[in-house]
Amino acid sequence: MVGGGPGAFIGAVHRLCAALDGQVELVAGCFSQSHEKTLRMGEELYLSPRRCYATYQEMAAAEAALPAAERIDFVSIVTPNVSHFAVAETFLKAGIHVVCDKPMTYTVDEAKQLVKVVEQSKLVFALTHNYTGHPLVRHARQLFRSGQMGQVRKVVVEYLQDFLMVPHEKLGQKQAAWRVDPAQSGIGGTLGDVGTHCVNLLEYVTGDPITELCADKSTFLPDRKLDEDVNALLRFQGGGKGALIISQVCTGEENGLRLRVYAERGAIHWAQENPNSLELYRYGEPRQTLTRGQGYLSDAAKACTRIPTGHPEGYLEAFATIYCDVVRAIRRSIDGSPMATDEYDFPTVYDGLRGMQFIYAAVESCATGSTWVRM
Amino acid sequence: MVGGGPGAFIGAVHRLCAALDGQVELVAGCFSQSHEKTLRMGEELYLSPRRCYATYQEMAAAEAALPAAERIDFVSIVTPNVSHFAVAETFLKAGIHVVCDKPMTYTVDEAKQLVKVVEQSKLVFALTHNYTGHPLVRHARQLFRSGQMGQVRKVVVEYLQDFLMVPHEKLGQKQAAWRVDPAQSGIGGTLGDVGTHCVNLLEYVTGDPITELCADKSTFLPDRKLDEDVNALLRFQGGGKGALIISQVCTGEENGLRLRVYAERGAIHWAQENPNSLELYRYGEPRQTLTRGQGYLSDAAKACTRIPTGHPEGYLEAFATIYCDVVRAIRRSIDGSPMATDEYDFPTVYDGLRGMQFIYAAVESCATGSTWVRM
Amino acid sequence: MVGGGPGAFIGAVHRLCAALDGQVELVAGCFSQSHEKTLRMGEELYLSPRRCYATYQEMAAAEAALPAAERIDFVSIVTPNVSHFAVAETFLKAGIHVVCDKPMTYTVDEAKQLVKVVEQSKLVFALTHNYTGHPLVRHARQLFRSGQMGQVRKVVVEYLQDFLMVPHEKLGQKQAAWRVDPAQSGIGGTLGDVGTHCVNLLEYVTGDPITELCADKSTFLPDRKLDEDVNALLRFQGGGKGALIISQVCTGEENGLRLRVYAERGAIHWAQENPNSLELYRYGEPRQTLTRGQGYLSDAAKACTRIPTGHPEGYLEAFATIYCDVVRAIRRSIDGSPMATDEYDFPTVYDGLRGMQFIYAAVESCATGSTWVRM
Amino acid sequence: MVGGGPGAFIGAVHRLCAALDGQVELVAGCFSQSHEKTLRMGEELYLSPRRCYATYQEMAAAEAALPAAERIDFVSIVTPNVSHFAVAETFLKAGIHVVCDKPMTYTVDEAKQLVKVVEQSKLVFALTHNYTGHPLVRHARQLFRSGQMGQVRKVVVEYLQDFLMVPHEKLGQKQAAWRVDPAQSGIGGTLGDVGTHCVNLLEYVTGDPITELCADKSTFLPDRKLDEDVNALLRFQGGGKGALIISQVCTGEENGLRLRVYAERGAIHWAQENPNSLELYRYGEPRQTLTRGQGYLSDAAKACTRIPTGHPEGYLEAFATIYCDVVRAIRRSIDGSPMATDEYDFPTVYDGLRGMQFIYAAVESCATGSTWVRM
Repeated sequence: MVGGGPGAFIGAVHRLCAALDGQVELVAGCFSQSHEKTLRMGEELYLSPRRCYATYQEMAAAEAALPAAERIDFVSIVTPNVSHFAVAETFLKAGIHVVCDKPMTYTVDEAKQLVKVVEQSKLVFALTHNYTGHPLVRHARQLFRSGQMGQVRKVVVEYLQDFLMVPHEKLGQKQAAWRVDPAQSGIGGTLGDVGTHCVNLLEYVTGDPITELCADKSTFLPDRKLDEDVNALLRFQGGGKGALIISQVCTGEENGLRLRVYAERGAIHWAQENPNSLELYRYGEPRQTLTRGQGYLSDAAKACTRIPTGHPEGYLEAFATIYCDVVRAIRRSIDGSPMATDEYDFPTVYDGLRGMQFIYAAVESCATGSTWVRM
Repeated sequence: MVGGGPGAFIGAVHRLCAALDGQVELVAGCFSQSHEKTLRMGEELYLSPRRCYATYQEMAAAEAALPAAERIDFVSIVTPNVSHFAVAETFLKAGIHVVCDKPMTYTVDEAKQLVKVVEQSKLVFALTHNYTGHPLVRHARQLFRSGQMGQVRKVVVEYLQDFLMVPHEKLGQKQAAWRVDPAQSGIGGTLGDVGTHCVNLLEYVTGDPITELCADKSTFLPDRKLDEDVNALLRFQGGGKGALIISQVCTGEENGLRLRVYAERGAIHWAQENPNSLELYRYGEPRQTLTRGQGYLSDAAKACTRIPTGHPEGYLEAFATIYCDVVRAIRRSIDGSPMATDEYDFPTVYDGLRGMQFIYAAVESCATGSTWVRM
Repeated sequence: MVGGGPGAFIGAVHRLCAALDGQVELVAGCFSQSHEKTLRMGEELYLSPRRCYATYQEMAAAEAALPAAERIDFVSIVTPNVSHFAVAETFLKAGIHVVCDKPMTYTVDEAKQLVKVVEQSKLVFALTHNYTGHPLVRHARQLFRSGQMGQVRKVVVEYLQDFLMVPHEKLGQKQAAWRVDPAQSGIGGTLGDVGTHCVNLLEYVTGDPITELCADKSTFLPDRKLDEDVNALLRFQGGGKGALIISQVCTGEENGLRLRVYAERGAIHWAQENPNSLELYRYGEPRQTLTRGQGYLSDAAKACTRIPTGHPEGYLEAFATIYCDVVRAIRRSIDGSPMATDEYDFPTVYDGLRGMQFIYAAVESCATGSTWVRM
Repeated sequence: MVGGGPGAFIGAVHRLCAALDGQVELVAGCFSQSHEKTLRMGEELYLSPRRCYATYQEMAAAEAALPAAERIDFVSIVTPNVSHFAVAETFLKAGIHVVCDKPMTYTVDEAKQLVKVVEQSKLVFALTHNYTGHPLVRHARQLFRSGQMGQVRKVVVEYLQDFLMVPHEKLGQKQAAWRVDPAQSGIGGTLGDVGTHCVNLLEYVTGDPITELCADKSTFLPDRKLDEDVNALLRFQGGGKGALIISQVCTGEENGLRLRVYAERGAIHWAQENPNSLELYRYGEPRQTLTRGQGYLSDAAKACTRIPTGHPEGYLEAFATIYCDVVRAIRRSIDGSPMATDEYDFPTVYDGLRGMQFIYAAVESCATGSTWVRM
């Protein structure tokens, strides 16, 4: 692991999730720019101090030099966005598979470069758009893939939080501080932090990509430089339309990622805060609520279900499912029978590029008076 | 009553609601363009055949000629949009107060003219944006008016139905037929039928008017000429932003009018399908659910509450509340102490003009490639 | 109307509901034991003072003496329980149909006598267990009647309020005062006020009568003499079991009447506070939510639906439906083609007797140490 | 681990949960009565075959003989109820701490004996009533402990499933087979499997023990010998009353454990299927929804919260919290500073005895015609 030092949120999540299914063991890390902090964190995690490295470059080199049976199989990158590219490139060039948090890079150019680096490496690169690990999200995708829903007419995707209602960055909170700092986050604030999840989720479920968008962003708190709140109109390849509604300054919203898709022959609603159920509507029929763990769900949903219906799985389990899928691909790669990228059931470098293109398109739209921009 | 013949929806609603509180008695009507149908409907409603008129012009003239104690105090206009203006003008000029269904007129020019006619008449003119009659909508308005919520940051207003998923107009359904016919509805389809309710509701609650919008409309069913589905970005006078999401082709949506307002010091959520409660969020505090009939609500909410908490009131009761408020204003007018327009607690001719301006602004935005248009 | 003077709750409800569908006009009343209050209330209601009577006996006699076309067709009794029997008997003997609020009488003996009086009178007698007027309750009944649900296994019926959390009777609130006074209410407090609704609702829906019960009642507030809170075990004729959970001292509960029935081939859930939907569960299938106004509902549900799906109907509409059904039976009686009692689709004197038997069985169970008592 | 072989549910859950927080490593097991199956399971779990034992007796002896640093610190017992006592006793006598699934033993006598064994051993004994590991359950307990709620008036606790709607035991499903077999389960079916959770949860939250109960049990499916469905009336030490409603044959219910407590100064509602929120009602105030991860919660709730608000934690996380608490107690024991039993924040042998007493009291009540039995 690179990043995820004391006090970090997403690093701890990656550790819990990787461990959950007993397939992954954390053995090495560079958790902080301070070697001392890395050593302290390593101790807490029962790591050997020899594998708690001062820099990620050192870590990549040292691990690559170990015998295959000892060295790390992959690295998880959980640093602020600004360093994703450099760290990923370093490990990929050292022959080590990569799991990277989103958004994928600091700039869209880095994203394009990373596509090339990954393609050349023939290694596994996974991006943790974790919400696609929920069984009912996978079931929703099957509903669209199978043709049961027909053409998409309207998508409403929202991701609302109130995390940035307070100027935490002025009060010493590290997680907020880097997120509102363009030097660490890139040109998107909320766009990168939650917007990219929306784009990934909706395209994953419908299979119908966004072709153009028109965005309107706002910043309400003083001294903030990045977008805190964005509304955007979307148009899809298949002729449908959509609205994307995101914010990190919406009072009372905790982690309100919600997807509604209205199509020709039915509609679905899914909400991250209640992830164990999926609403399914058909014209003129009773509304249906599908629940995780039931026999009527698709194999895709069943394959990532751990415990019986009514015993709620949550955020960590879905995140861990992404790790399981990645581990499967890495094992296949190690075994010499690598999967093709389109066999992956986890987000890839191409999804990462798409996320960066979204951020850039939205920022360009806003910069030109909220006009339409192709994506 | 003018309009509301056999099979009509909104005419019957007006009759139920006007009667509910025992303040209004229906005594005369011109329910249809066919005198025979008007007579038949009149019989069903226990009216005197002499007061079942062949034309609205005849009705206005005959009623105006009756002694004050006998003639109708006001007329309810529940015809398709195309005739609202002519009927309203005729009755106002005959000295009779008017209640009119929305949208107010067929064109924005008619709306402007009607403003003048009403102003000159010094009579009461009410527009039945019925959703503002719900006690918790009135409480929400008080929260914003009182300054407790602070500046509006984001509004999400939706009105989704699946009423037009099926080409009812080809299957003989009258209500659908006029709604999808530009010759009867005007230039807006969904924009007029549900969009104007959204604009009225959000401006009523927040008191913060829309200044510009950018809209994207769609028509999915073959042979339809008007918009079935619209998404729009909104900007408000106070600096906030919004999204307006309307449709009549969203499978499984019944009458999904929902308003969410996120402001500086709190947020509210209200949904028409569950109108007896209001969600209120404050940063860092437990979420609150306020319920109709409770002592902690504002006087504005209490004044329009008929029965105790937990005994749900619905669509008809809120609609009837608008009638109660109108009747109060008409009584004051008859008593010779007319209210000023800004004392009215029901929608007026100015709200009606605003609705028409919204339709025209949205259509213009779409016609120019979904650009921003001032409203 | 007898009862329903200034400040009364249920009297006002009866008036609103009787008026809603334009079939009933209030023309006479004895609203209070004070003639002056009756006159005042009559004036508010635009009644002729001649038909605002000093006593109910006088009213029955005077109205019976009027020509058939002028006299009242029926009387609504909305006094405290203690006088229901005497008033009902008086009007029935005067040849006037009766609508009576629940519980039907002060004692079970009166209830038995009233059965005889009604049978002899050949007049319509209706009891306003209003919750059976909801379209989805009627649909639920059809599901059980049609055999689609199979044998009932478990019923959970609850009716929870917090109305009596505060000693309103010591603070001058009339509605609370008579309810907690055995001299006016009878031997049941909560048992009569909300318990009888539970029994009526569950037997109406399942058609499977309670055969025995075991009850445990409590009174928490000082100086109260009647039950405020009861839990009871139920056994049904068909072999199923149940729990009845009622209270008027449950903080935060407003009018929490909820019915769940688990049967051999499915389950239903209905809640009065959200009466426009019905949950329907089938083993191994997605949960269904049925909503008022949809085409897939039974004719019984459609027949009592006024406005389209998604436009919520509430407490008053369901109550008014009972009135509509009663009016139909009274018209038939007046026309000389009276319905048989088992054709009635409203609660009758037999339902009223059943409610009184429930109160007595529950009180007897409690008095004998919460043992099982046949009902 | 003893038990939890191929196909078992709860064994797999224990393994996931023990692993989640990186504090526990599974190193030895006797997963099945077949040594071959144990070896196979051990291989899947990356265990050394030397520590995959043929019998639990052998395992206890062999592990006890290892040096302290190598031997297991504790054993998790996840076998059918019939063997809990023998296995627990064996390990405790070998000086090994024990985590045991519920219900604690096969008979109430064994439970009493086990209390003595545990007391003599001075070792940690934990029972996995996992639902007490939810942050909002712990917060609810604090609300009652702190005196904010006042005296308990009414408790409604339900645990409804449809798991046994189908005769799985005849169709080869192992989990169902032992649960419906008195030879493996004991005298309680649903009473033991879900009823004991209810008792533990409600007494944990309110701190107000059940003093007597009156139960009515049913068995609907042919050839079943144990209770499938039970309703019971409860009385509490503090004078309050309750209803316990449990079943494993309620169509459409998945894992419906729900607790409602109405007290003098407020009420709480918590539901296992949506464990991240807690409803809190105060008389005359807006209803509150408290959510996991918020700053206003008690320290008890915060201490067992892993990830931020809005990121749902579920069944496994709460279960893992019990393991964390047990591990803390075991570490203290190993360190030579053992906690007192009443410092434990996990269910103990006394809770287990209480559960067995509940089963026996309920069965005795039913056997005597559903009379009241002290507990």
